[in-house]
Amino acid sequence: MRTSRVEAFSDGVFGIAGTLLVLELRVPEDGTDLGRALIALWPAYAAYLVSFLTIGIIWVNHHALLEHCRHADRPFLYLNVLLLMSVAIVPFPTALVGHYILSEHGATAALLVYGLGALLIAIAFSGVFFYATGNARVIGDAAEARRLRQDGRLFPIGLVSYSLGIALAFFEPKASLAVYALTAAFYALPILPLPRR
Amino acid sequence: MRTSRVEAFSDGVFGIAGTLLVLELRVPEDGTDLGRALIALWPAYAAYLVSFLTIGIIWVNHHALLEHCRHADRPFLYLNVLLLMSVAIVPFPTALVGHYILSEHGATAALLVYGLGALLIAIAFSGVFFYATGNARVIGDAAEARRLRQDGRLFPIGLVSYSLGIALAFFEPKASLAVYALTAAFYALPILPLPRR
Amino acid sequence: MRTSRVEAFSDGVFGIAGTLLVLELRVPEDGTDLGRALIALWPAYAAYLVSFLTIGIIWVNHHALLEHCRHADRPFLYLNVLLLMSVAIVPFPTALVGHYILSEHGATAALLVYGLGALLIAIAFSGVFFYATGNARVIGDAAEARRLRQDGRLFPIGLVSYSLGIALAFFEPKASLAVYALTAAFYALPILPLPRR
Amino acid sequence: MRTSRVEAFSDGVFGIAGTLLVLELRVPEDGTDLGRALIALWPAYAAYLVSFLTIGIIWVNHHALLEHCRHADRPFLYLNVLLLMSVAIVPFPTALVGHYILSEHGATAALLVYGLGALLIAIAFSGVFFYATGNARVIGDAAEARRLRQDGRLFPIGLVSYSLGIALAFFEPKASLAVYALTAAFYALPILPLPRR
Repeated sequence: MRTSRVEAFSDGVFGIAGTLLVLELRVPEDGTDLGRALIALWPAYAAYLVSFLTIGIIWVNHHALLEHCRHADRPFLYLNVLLLMSVAIVPFPTALVGHYILSEHGATAALLVYGLGALLIAIAFSGVFFYATGNARVIGDAAEARRLRQDGRLFPIGLVSYSLGIALAFFEPKASLAVYALTAAFYALPILPLPRR
Repeated sequence: MRTSRVEAFSDGVFGIAGTLLVLELRVPEDGTDLGRALIALWPAYAAYLVSFLTIGIIWVNHHALLEHCRHADRPFLYLNVLLLMSVAIVPFPTALVGHYILSEHGATAALLVYGLGALLIAIAFSGVFFYATGNARVIGDAAEARRLRQDGRLFPIGLVSYSLGIALAFFEPKASLAVYALTAAFYALPILPLPRR
Repeated sequence: MRTSRVEAFSDGVFGIAGTLLVLELRVPEDGTDLGRALIALWPAYAAYLVSFLTIGIIWVNHHALLEHCRHADRPFLYLNVLLLMSVAIVPFPTALVGHYILSEHGATAALLVYGLGALLIAIAFSGVFFYATGNARVIGDAAEARRLRQDGRLFPIGLVSYSLGIALAFFEPKASLAVYALTAAFYALPILPLPRR
Repeated sequence: MRTSRVEAFSDGVFGIAGTLLVLELRVPEDGTDLGRALIALWPAYAAYLVSFLTIGIIWVNHHALLEHCRHADRPFLYLNVLLLMSVAIVPFPTALVGHYILSEHGATAALLVYGLGALLIAIAFSGVFFYATGNARVIGDAAEARRLRQDGRLFPIGLVSYSLGIALAFFEPKASLAVYALTAAFYALPILPLPRR
């Protein structure tokens, strides 16, 4: 099966998950000093920033991977649905972090859930990646599949760094968010080559 | 008419319906023990999981069916609109189930509505399927249409199992959700062949 | 300019506007009799039905029109943006109608706003239609443009029937919703031919 | 890499950001005079209008630019993600303006945030534009890249006029919204040529 419709559906979910993040930026109540209230929302802006960039960067890598794929079979489609399901959750932990990162007893739980969500995405992406590159039929060329898998050998690093962020949530929740942001930045590096078309 | 734009519109609705589910995962109120409050949300996570996978699996089957279709005529388009209308409702029964499955007097009504929504999808998908495969022009090849209809003879099984789930909602609402999840799992089987392109 | 990206953007807005309608189906509060509360929501279901089908039918007609278009110029793009802006409003009047159709003093205002929204869509669609068919360059074939305009001579009937529905809103709000539903049903007729591809 | 998937993802975000604006049009509470309450919502309608048209016009210009692009590389993709992130924020300042433009102490802050959001979009779009036209590989033809950059020399005017609007927010918030609307109208002019395909 062609991969073009996989891309359309995926682009839809990535785009919507990113755009729904804005719904967590809530207009402050009347009667307050609006300027001050808007400044106090900064954790929500920070969470928006980290999550939107994370989704954008995953999209770029998904894009890079699918440009190498020729045929989608059922396991590939289901692994991709699992990836999309994890990405679609992102607005929930983002709202949690925006709301609770400054709270004394809520910050750990919020950052823990954020990390679990990110870990889920990393696992699902690894699933899609290893299935595609371990399967000559999906890529359509065994040599290219091997090369891609070799190129992407650093891909599973998110599994480690998100776990680290989760552990940090118990001690320093804000440092935990920094680890999540840095992990996204790592994935922004050109790990997978873009086809030269 | 080409089917590519039918696919784009459908992918949009499938993707959005799936992603809107996350809006029903609500950030718990301040002042509570956040960790405990998040654990208490487990029925909402379960409902998210069942509904997202259901939508993802319907998308895969829709995809498989439309890959065999060459021409879309007006009845086909309207049947597809009815299918999308049913899929777009999913966030509502999902929220009901997430909210009421543990409630003593609400669980039956919630699972009943969930089952009715699922039944509506099964009826609409059957409509699209039988129209497409009963109509040489849509598939563009009478032999392939017959083969597809033969392959999809188990498709209407959802009509039976969703009805069963609805009946169960009156006695064991949680078992009812399990029946809905199992029905989705059944449809994940390779019933319709994917084209070998 | 090719029309394919016009279609992608339009499909996105149509799909999202349709799917956002579900957010107006709100989970009833705890502590009520859920079954009864869900039945009392019937005006919201009716409004969902009329609005989703209206959007679906507009999408089919938009689709039919754009299949005949070869080139999009700037005025065409802006007229299309105005159409999408009107379609994207639909969830608001739908929520109004679902909430107020049974209310004694709110029903007229709600149905009036619904009719104004529908009228706006009819005006914008007429704008796109007359611009495209009055302009040999958009269709790319003067004879086909003339034929299409001739085929679509009943298109502006919505301007009349939505105005009628608005007038009715002052006397019989429920009859007004019926007029809006019938207008959608009228547009489901095969007014514009689908290309025989 | 081909630019078609960049377009699909971008169209998704543009379409969703535009359509989410409607969620800020809130159904007035029961028990009020609905007609009067709906008229009192006019600032929200004005904000919807300005924001939807702004997004629609950015989409047309994005469309015009990408029609000239042949190859997307990683910096191009990330600049585009930054642009989409800015566009996806629009519903938040729109809601602020709709809610606070008539308020005595909130109007300045609301219009200031709206202007900052618009400025962010203008900066990000300039980034995409200058990267694409300064890079023979993205456009795929050095002469065409030079010509485009020459055509788009008025593009950064938004940086100036949005800054002006921000300054005005401190004295005349309503005039500030007018400046934002006029800036969008300026970008509706045919600055970038559409390819004659």
